[in-house]
Amino acid sequence: MSPRVSKQHLEERKNHILDAAKRVFEQKGYEPVTMQDIVKEAGISRGNLYQYFSNTEEIMQAVIEKNDDSFYTYIQDLASSHEKVWDAIQAYQKVVFQSLPNPYGIVMYEYSVTRWRNPERKAFFQKRYTRAMKSFLALLEEGVKQGEFHPVQPLETIVNFMVNIWDGLILMAHVEEPERVAVGGQLEALNLYLIQALRPDENTDWHLDTKIEPG
Amino acid sequence: MSPRVSKQHLEERKNHILDAAKRVFEQKGYEPVTMQDIVKEAGISRGNLYQYFSNTEEIMQAVIEKNDDSFYTYIQDLASSHEKVWDAIQAYQKVVFQSLPNPYGIVMYEYSVTRWRNPERKAFFQKRYTRAMKSFLALLEEGVKQGEFHPVQPLETIVNFMVNIWDGLILMAHVEEPERVAVGGQLEALNLYLIQALRPDENTDWHLDTKIEPG
Repeated sequence: MSPRVSKQHLEERKNHILDAAKRVFEQKGYEPVTMQDIVKEAGISRGNLYQYFSNTEEIMQAVIEKNDDSFYTYIQDLASSHEKVWDAIQAYQKVVFQSLPNPYGIVMYEYSVTRWRNPERKAFFQKRYTRAMKSFLALLEEGVKQGEFHPVQPLETIVNFMVNIWDGLILMAHVEEPERVAVGGQLEALNLYLIQALRPDENTDWHLDTKIEPG
Repeated sequence: MSPRVSKQHLEERKNHILDAAKRVFEQKGYEPVTMQDIVKEAGISRGNLYQYFSNTEEIMQAVIEKNDDSFYTYIQDLASSHEKVWDAIQAYQKVVFQSLPNPYGIVMYEYSVTRWRNPERKAFFQKRYTRAMKSFLALLEEGVKQGEFHPVQPLETIVNFMVNIWDGLILMAHVEEPERVAVGGQLEALNLYLIQALRPDENTDWHLDTKIEPG
């Protein structure tokens, strides 16, 4: 076996483990999952798992990093795949709406909340936050550059606010009945804010098409 | 000792335990705290603690309920202590801003996040959410009744959105640097939204006086 094939094989096995681990985390939540759960779900040997990861914390971080990679590729493509940045934001808002019932969001949320008392986890998420900020800032800056937006708040603040809302909806969607927390209405509320904060040129509509129920 | 004095004494001892427990939770977070930690902080015997509570979960819920009672008394008084409901909301926004560094918020948050996989905790928080909704709805309804607000979204949605922002800020304020997440700017952003969503009569200002740094 050439080193190239071997490397590819190792990568595939790692992805197989991460996919299995993600399913287990989504079923049980982060804290209760053991290495044995992942061994069982992946259908591999214990020794095989430990060749790649030492504990569930490492696995969780690898799951998040893998997920983030495809997420940020999507965000980067958003601006170029829409004529108006406003339309790109609307496309993203619909993705948020549709993906809310996915348990991955709440597991990741749960894992991240305890970071205030876990320095390693805190460092991991601060790096992650920097990446999120950078991606969404680039999107809004594109709108300013194209003369589409005339913001009345710093773009950083606007991005913080957006991220705050979207993160909060993940929690709300999993702990209350969706109609009770008016998930669609809150995304519309964010649009109503964004129109005031970004001041797009034309007469943009703050109503979001959320007729497709999440889930 | 008369039964009246005895009852009062029991209540005082319970409050002493809850104050000690709150300090321990704020130092260590919810999960790591043991009954022994609370025994030590309260300076009482183990048997004495178990007369009141069977486990840290019960104590945490009692701490939250005690805190909520004074919180909702404050919210109820907000409308009557301000001429305009808008000013009452601004007074509350300042309280949010100033109380963000308090670790109680993040501990309670941490405890609540895991409710998606804990049915008893979920029921506890759904009851709590109903109470929060009711209190803030009453405040906004007062503004509508007085002809001060002309909302363009359902009041329930507006309250959901407000609660979402404030909850999210608790998390952000404890896991990132405050200036990095623009806490004050986000509260201003909420004001900017509220002016559009509630449509107050006069030319209200969305800028919040957050010159007093939190903490």
